[in-house]
Amino acid sequence: MISRSDAEVLFANERFYNAFAQGDGAEMNGIWGREGAVTCLHPGWEPLLKRHDIIASWTAILAEPPGICCHSPTVVMLGQHGASVLCWEEIQRTYMLATNVFRREADGWKIVHHQACPTSGTPPKVAAHSSASKSVN
Amino acid sequence: MISRSDAEVLFANERFYNAFAQGDGAEMNGIWGREGAVTCLHPGWEPLLKRHDIIASWTAILAEPPGICCHSPTVVMLGQHGASVLCWEEIQRTYMLATNVFRREADGWKIVHHQACPTSGTPPKVAAHSSASKSVN
Repeated sequence: MISRSDAEVLFANERFYNAFAQGDGAEMNGIWGREGAVTCLHPGWEPLLKRHDIIASWTAILAEPPGICCHSPTVVMLGQHGASVLCWEEIQRTYMLATNVFRREADGWKIVHHQACPTSGTPPKVAAHSSASKSVN
Repeated sequence: MISRSDAEVLFANERFYNAFAQGDGAEMNGIWGREGAVTCLHPGWEPLLKRHDIIASWTAILAEPPGICCHSPTVVMLGQHGASVLCWEEIQRTYMLATNVFRREADGWKIVHHQACPTSGTPPKVAAHSSASKSVN
C-alpha cells in the first residue's frame, strides 16, 4: 500500500503525462510551478531555466503531441513539500527515462523540473508483455 | 546573492562531484540518503531503485574515476527538506546534462536521485572560454 503523499505525487505525475499526451497547453501551463525556480531539460535542447521559456517549449512540443505514455513510476519523497519521480516514457515503441520533480505549492503539487533521456532499454512490464515465456517481476 | 538554503544545496552538490572525481567510495556512500527511497539513472544502465544497488554501482564506477567536473549548477528549492540541481558534467571534453535531487536528512543534505544524459551542447562558461570573440552570458 502506498502512502497518501506518494499517491498525490503519482497523480500529479499522471496529470503531467495526460497534458503531454493530449496536447493540452493550458493544462500544461497550469501544472508547472509558480512559487520559485523551475528548470527543464528536453532531449537535444539547451537547458531551460525560466518559466516563460519552459511554457513556450511545451507550446511548441504540444502543437504535435507525440502519443506518450508513462510506465513504472517510482516516487522519492523529500519532506512534505518536495518529491521526485523516476519513470519510463513510451513514444511510438521507443523509450525514454525521465526524472520529474514536484513541489507542493498553495494549490497542490506542481511540476518544477523535467529531464528525459533516450534509452535502449524497456520498462519491466513492457518487457514482460513482449516476451510471454519470460518471467519478469 | 544566493540564499543560505541554495548555498547548502550547492555545497552538497559539490561534495557529490568531489567524491565522484576523487573516486572516494566511502564518501559517496556517506552522502547518499538513508531516510527514505533513493533512485539513480546512470547513462546506458537500467534504473537503480535500491540503495544497495546504487552504492554497488558507484563502487564499480569509482574503481576508475573519470575525471569529472560540474559546471553551471541551478538550484530549485522544494520547501525546507528538498531540492533539485540541474548542472552540466564535463568528462574529458565531453558533456552531460544532469539532475541531482537532495533531501535534508538528520545529518544534512543527502543526494537521493541522480540522472545524467549525454549532450552535444556545451555549458555557457565553457563556450565563452573556447570562443573569445563570441559574447555569451
